[in-house]
Amino acid sequence: MTAADSESESSHTGLPPGRRVGLWLIGGRGAISTCLVYGLRGLVDGLLEPTGLATSTAPFEGLDLAEFGNLVLGGCEVRRGTLDRAARELVRQRILDPSLVAATATEAAAYDARLAPGLLDGPDVGMADLDPESARLGGAAPREQIAAIVSQLEAFRAQQQLDRVVVVNLASTEAWRDPDPAWADLPALQRALDAGEAQPASMVYAIAAFEAGCPYVNFTPSIGASTPALRQLALEHGQPHCGNDGKTGETLVKTALAPMFAHRALKVLAWQGYNMLGNRDGEVLSDPLHRRAKIANKDEVLRQLIGHPELHTHVGIDYVPSLSDWKTAWDLVHFEGFLGTRMTLQFTWAGCDSALAAPLVLDLVRLADLAASRGESGVMEHTAGYFKSPLGGGSHDFHLQYHRLLTYAAECRVRS
Amino acid sequence: MTAADSESESSHTGLPPGRRVGLWLIGGRGAISTCLVYGLRGLVDGLLEPTGLATSTAPFEGLDLAEFGNLVLGGCEVRRGTLDRAARELVRQRILDPSLVAATATEAAAYDARLAPGLLDGPDVGMADLDPESARLGGAAPREQIAAIVSQLEAFRAQQQLDRVVVVNLASTEAWRDPDPAWADLPALQRALDAGEAQPASMVYAIAAFEAGCPYVNFTPSIGASTPALRQLALEHGQPHCGNDGKTGETLVKTALAPMFAHRALKVLAWQGYNMLGNRDGEVLSDPLHRRAKIANKDEVLRQLIGHPELHTHVGIDYVPSLSDWKTAWDLVHFEGFLGTRMTLQFTWAGCDSALAAPLVLDLVRLADLAASRGESGVMEHTAGYFKSPLGGGSHDFHLQYHRLLTYAAECRVRS
Amino acid sequence: MTAADSESESSHTGLPPGRRVGLWLIGGRGAISTCLVYGLRGLVDGLLEPTGLATSTAPFEGLDLAEFGNLVLGGCEVRRGTLDRAARELVRQRILDPSLVAATATEAAAYDARLAPGLLDGPDVGMADLDPESARLGGAAPREQIAAIVSQLEAFRAQQQLDRVVVVNLASTEAWRDPDPAWADLPALQRALDAGEAQPASMVYAIAAFEAGCPYVNFTPSIGASTPALRQLALEHGQPHCGNDGKTGETLVKTALAPMFAHRALKVLAWQGYNMLGNRDGEVLSDPLHRRAKIANKDEVLRQLIGHPELHTHVGIDYVPSLSDWKTAWDLVHFEGFLGTRMTLQFTWAGCDSALAAPLVLDLVRLADLAASRGESGVMEHTAGYFKSPLGGGSHDFHLQYHRLLTYAAECRVRS
Amino acid sequence: MTAADSESESSHTGLPPGRRVGLWLIGGRGAISTCLVYGLRGLVDGLLEPTGLATSTAPFEGLDLAEFGNLVLGGCEVRRGTLDRAARELVRQRILDPSLVAATATEAAAYDARLAPGLLDGPDVGMADLDPESARLGGAAPREQIAAIVSQLEAFRAQQQLDRVVVVNLASTEAWRDPDPAWADLPALQRALDAGEAQPASMVYAIAAFEAGCPYVNFTPSIGASTPALRQLALEHGQPHCGNDGKTGETLVKTALAPMFAHRALKVLAWQGYNMLGNRDGEVLSDPLHRRAKIANKDEVLRQLIGHPELHTHVGIDYVPSLSDWKTAWDLVHFEGFLGTRMTLQFTWAGCDSALAAPLVLDLVRLADLAASRGESGVMEHTAGYFKSPLGGGSHDFHLQYHRLLTYAAECRVRS
Repeated sequence: MTAADSESESSHTGLPPGRRVGLWLIGGRGAISTCLVYGLRGLVDGLLEPTGLATSTAPFEGLDLAEFGNLVLGGCEVRRGTLDRAARELVRQRILDPSLVAATATEAAAYDARLAPGLLDGPDVGMADLDPESARLGGAAPREQIAAIVSQLEAFRAQQQLDRVVVVNLASTEAWRDPDPAWADLPALQRALDAGEAQPASMVYAIAAFEAGCPYVNFTPSIGASTPALRQLALEHGQPHCGNDGKTGETLVKTALAPMFAHRALKVLAWQGYNMLGNRDGEVLSDPLHRRAKIANKDEVLRQLIGHPELHTHVGIDYVPSLSDWKTAWDLVHFEGFLGTRMTLQFTWAGCDSALAAPLVLDLVRLADLAASRGESGVMEHTAGYFKSPLGGGSHDFHLQYHRLLTYAAECRVRS
Repeated sequence: MTAADSESESSHTGLPPGRRVGLWLIGGRGAISTCLVYGLRGLVDGLLEPTGLATSTAPFEGLDLAEFGNLVLGGCEVRRGTLDRAARELVRQRILDPSLVAATATEAAAYDARLAPGLLDGPDVGMADLDPESARLGGAAPREQIAAIVSQLEAFRAQQQLDRVVVVNLASTEAWRDPDPAWADLPALQRALDAGEAQPASMVYAIAAFEAGCPYVNFTPSIGASTPALRQLALEHGQPHCGNDGKTGETLVKTALAPMFAHRALKVLAWQGYNMLGNRDGEVLSDPLHRRAKIANKDEVLRQLIGHPELHTHVGIDYVPSLSDWKTAWDLVHFEGFLGTRMTLQFTWAGCDSALAAPLVLDLVRLADLAASRGESGVMEHTAGYFKSPLGGGSHDFHLQYHRLLTYAAECRVRS
Repeated sequence: MTAADSESESSHTGLPPGRRVGLWLIGGRGAISTCLVYGLRGLVDGLLEPTGLATSTAPFEGLDLAEFGNLVLGGCEVRRGTLDRAARELVRQRILDPSLVAATATEAAAYDARLAPGLLDGPDVGMADLDPESARLGGAAPREQIAAIVSQLEAFRAQQQLDRVVVVNLASTEAWRDPDPAWADLPALQRALDAGEAQPASMVYAIAAFEAGCPYVNFTPSIGASTPALRQLALEHGQPHCGNDGKTGETLVKTALAPMFAHRALKVLAWQGYNMLGNRDGEVLSDPLHRRAKIANKDEVLRQLIGHPELHTHVGIDYVPSLSDWKTAWDLVHFEGFLGTRMTLQFTWAGCDSALAAPLVLDLVRLADLAASRGESGVMEHTAGYFKSPLGGGSHDFHLQYHRLLTYAAECRVRS
Repeated sequence: MTAADSESESSHTGLPPGRRVGLWLIGGRGAISTCLVYGLRGLVDGLLEPTGLATSTAPFEGLDLAEFGNLVLGGCEVRRGTLDRAARELVRQRILDPSLVAATATEAAAYDARLAPGLLDGPDVGMADLDPESARLGGAAPREQIAAIVSQLEAFRAQQQLDRVVVVNLASTEAWRDPDPAWADLPALQRALDAGEAQPASMVYAIAAFEAGCPYVNFTPSIGASTPALRQLALEHGQPHCGNDGKTGETLVKTALAPMFAHRALKVLAWQGYNMLGNRDGEVLSDPLHRRAKIANKDEVLRQLIGHPELHTHVGIDYVPSLSDWKTAWDLVHFEGFLGTRMTLQFTWAGCDSALAAPLVLDLVRLADLAASRGESGVMEHTAGYFKSPLGGGSHDFHLQYHRLLTYAAECRVRS
């Protein structure tokens, strides 16, 4: 079905014209997904402004982006529970407005009901509250896992009459793994899959996404599609993808500020960053193996932007349950100026992590859908500014990244 | 005398080859000038790294910039006192290294001895500790003032065998003045000068600079060469100039951070900025009339970078004597994200104002000399990133301003 | 009716035993009163913990304090509007829990319906949204005003079968007034009242309270019962009273921290305090005349606790609408240690002003009722720790103030 | 020799009347000792104010405290190096004034020359730059170590004609040790010493101090005289002592602020503390075993002052070389108020650790000498406010601790 077909069809169904795009949310009852379910409804109904969505600002006008009314949510989840319970928790944390929750009850229940079993990453098996079917799937051979996910995606596409499904990884950070030779090229990976060697869940999802003809967005620090093998697979299936690790808070500020010191030739001596958070993400990251991947991404940024050999950096993440989703970060920048004078800049960021992440997910899904519509495949390099560890590499300077995105938007307009 | 002549001559005198450039420092015993006297010596002798000087970083290599060893300091001052006393105060504040002060004693004394009387801005007459000749000059007719300054500049050029003199305004902020019709075009200004109508000191200096064939850098928020009349005069005399109000600290951070909120479509509700400083600048700014110009510049920046109609901003400057030159600023950014969640970013900047300003002055003098050497005249638009209120207008986004400067550097390299 | 009568009566009415105490809230639809209406219900129903109430902690066990279930709310208001609207605003600001608001709807409506017209302070006449009867009362002669308030208080006592009514001033800060000779002693004040000379509303309320046999708590910086004349009147009528200006946030921190510097012989050079708030209190304080009283109280504190002659202090209050009731304060303490080293402590306080104030009001009402029950009259010196400008004077050191309160509690226990 | 003898003698020697008191500084070339050498000279010569010395404030007037002019410095050191090099480092860090260093050169050299070899704690053997005689002493049997130190102390007393020597432990934090049964009572310890079982250096110093008739001050978190066995030994030798771990910065602020939350019945949910420092202390603490003792002391404080079961706390210490002696700490206090509202207080402390510690050492030595003069022995409970982990236990509330010290001072005055 082409976009044109969809448009003609939509005239029959009362749907707005344009592509219907599904979001397949891995971690479908997590805090970000919950914000998406209620927030998207609020956007469509005009109850919320599109705050936090760059794709709704002036520079993106006129692009062939999917409209909010054409976005359909689905996904999978490994834990038991209900979306309503997740929503009530976000109301208690004073993130979600209770009247919005009430107004969205029917749709939220429908979304909740269609959530499929998820795939738990191997090292996390044994976690409490696991959905039994997810537990079973977690123990299956990788080819079986892939097939199960592909058929979930196809069912979603068919049932919801979607022109495209974008797979979005919003699951908790996986435990760190040392690189595996099987990830180095596609034939090696295929052999490992054939041999039944277990792979990280984030990678299995990415394989399934590409095989099902879906773009893939990895909002987590997990491996996902970042390996050479997966990049080849994406090209082979002609799918665009992007990641890793959404740049929502402290790292965003870092990549906006660090270039300032470099441009002014001020010598940063030390940059200490302390992050505190209390949501499930924080709980998972309180485990050293899970924290390792996260911190590596956050620290790399400064080395590139400032990086003289004497630079001292530190990135800490601590679990502070009472903060729940309200992430607080404090950074100290100790720097030297002319005459050897030593000065400091410190900042405290107090942000609601899920509410910062959710609009970025919407942006990325719209951009992935746009890229796929334009026939682009492989890494979406223009999305680097959305990630702590962008797959396409390049400068971490947020301003350069943003201007790269603007350039892409301008090119789309010219070539459309 | 051309640069070529100068080079041949320098082979006789033992000076390094290249243009000899004089800096005429208005406010020659102020904290920035004091840092320049000792700091330049430290740079030339290799005791100090060129920290804080963008023109000494990689992107500016290969440009025909004056070398530190070819920069000669001179200037004028309205207050009594000695440079040594100013230096001891900066040692006490733990800004200047006492061993550097000791090593520079001879040159500092020579500089001090050649400082000329300055021109006090009219409303400031009556200030304590005024040099009597400066007091007399302050009361003279504007044409006489201009003539006196021109002959000071010419004497400096001749005595020090300089290829060029760049006039730099580092004096305390002048009292606010409402715009005068005489500033609107050059003929009107010439008539006012003929009629003996007193003009702001910063403007008189700029007139004298252009008439003496000198570029002019206005590092203060005072009027200087910002009026239409003065801009015409600069073009008429073929001189480059730039200003106003060096962007050293809190505003620099603002202009690096504010674009981040805009690019992420986060809605800034309020941006409150509180500045505290205890040096002479702070004392002068504790007077409301002097503060007015300063705050106007600082506030304008956010309106442009964020500027939706509901934005609430505040910029305060308070005099806190004990902080002396160590300026401390605290900013609170209150912003709204997706779902109407309200979040904050706050930062504290603790910087040594003079040590931040001095290398910017060296950058600007080198750039002004370069522009003059290349035959450029009028506003140096590529220096916008150095100023809170850049004469050439344009975006206050520090990153855009920096890339404009890089573009200029690249053009110089191509066309040299 | 005595407490004993009340107890026997309560066995008939199903009320808990003990004194029934009314709170007459001046500013009955303001944010603090709104928090009190819903919060008291939450306390009585066990939905809320008594967080923020010192009188519910261990050191106060065993005192004859009124129980929450015996507190009855009433009051007056000068502005139009409804409590429900005020509650919805606090829900929107994420201060009040919507389920608590829903559960309290009936009682809140009853409270709202029994609010009487208030007395507007003269200089504030002309404010928008004024209740017409309040406007009329504002223009009446002071004797008539007093009589009207006395009869409101008596009606409240009779209708609600109260053993005692405590009058609590929670109105917006009044404009500053220079001291009036009529305030210097009671006969002078009586003559002024007879002569029909208008008096500050806060003082008229205090006169009426004492004449009606009610203790009076002034939680605002307005004059209230702080003058010699009023202090005499309180003694004459045998009523206890306390004030001025509830110590809820930044000043609380100041009075906890400043003694530390003094005890360690560290020399505080400067203490700069910046307060931002966006509620009605902030709006009123954005007017210089209203701000004057507030700032005087806040600044006095440091002079007493640290007060060497060179100490530099500043207290600013800025209106930042988006912060609404979430007051944010930033303080910088610049101090000198051994060897003349200069160091800093800075803190940021982000608190919900009404939620901080409401439990203090409950504490004070319980303490005022206890004092009255014990036959005490005049200034309640043991409540000094609750106020920025305690009527009984003494040290502002919060720890000394708290230990004074503990001593009082111990004495009550001994003598009961 | 009695104090009276000393006074008569001093009339012959030109020394001020009163007791001559020696300070035996363990870690005699460390940053605190260096500050003491130059700072004491500055105090005696009137170049410095006694900032940071509580014993020089009004409440301590009239006590029989040793005068600055009667304090004589000596000590020991395990590392090679010179005091001059240590002083130059503190000048570079802008802590010591170079003119004070120059004025004290002769005395500093004399002090440096008389420093004795120190005793390295066993687990630290292998550290670079160790003095060879210290290395030898570190490997000796404990009885031999004790004897060596006793004779160092006796030689210092004799050569400097001292009435008393106070031993002060200022060495780097020792590695954590699990409690040893030999520490549980004095006979057990004596047996262990006889058996040649190695003991922590801080404990060996304390034994030697008591055996030589010297009070002992443990400014470090090392074990020192905190065990039952040592406490018995102090009583047996009639010597006063105090410790552990000087309360100089972040913990001081904590113990001044935490009671405020408790007194206001505000519920602290989390208190996160991050410390950064770059001096030798920081370097040693970057080793987990050395950090363990330090953090235990810092964390205990909050548990006692706030300590409801749900309280979440964290204390981190990170080594940031560029900060050198300028310790920076950031604390976040997340607390709940009435209505379940969640609020924050955060503070940043930027202090020069050695300049904060040095005057506390002078206070403690004067108080130890006073106690010894008054015939007191055992733990100096009135000094609790000087320590993170006071030997006498009691409340960590800094205000209560200070008032305990004031009470002691008052008693001394009454009974003198």
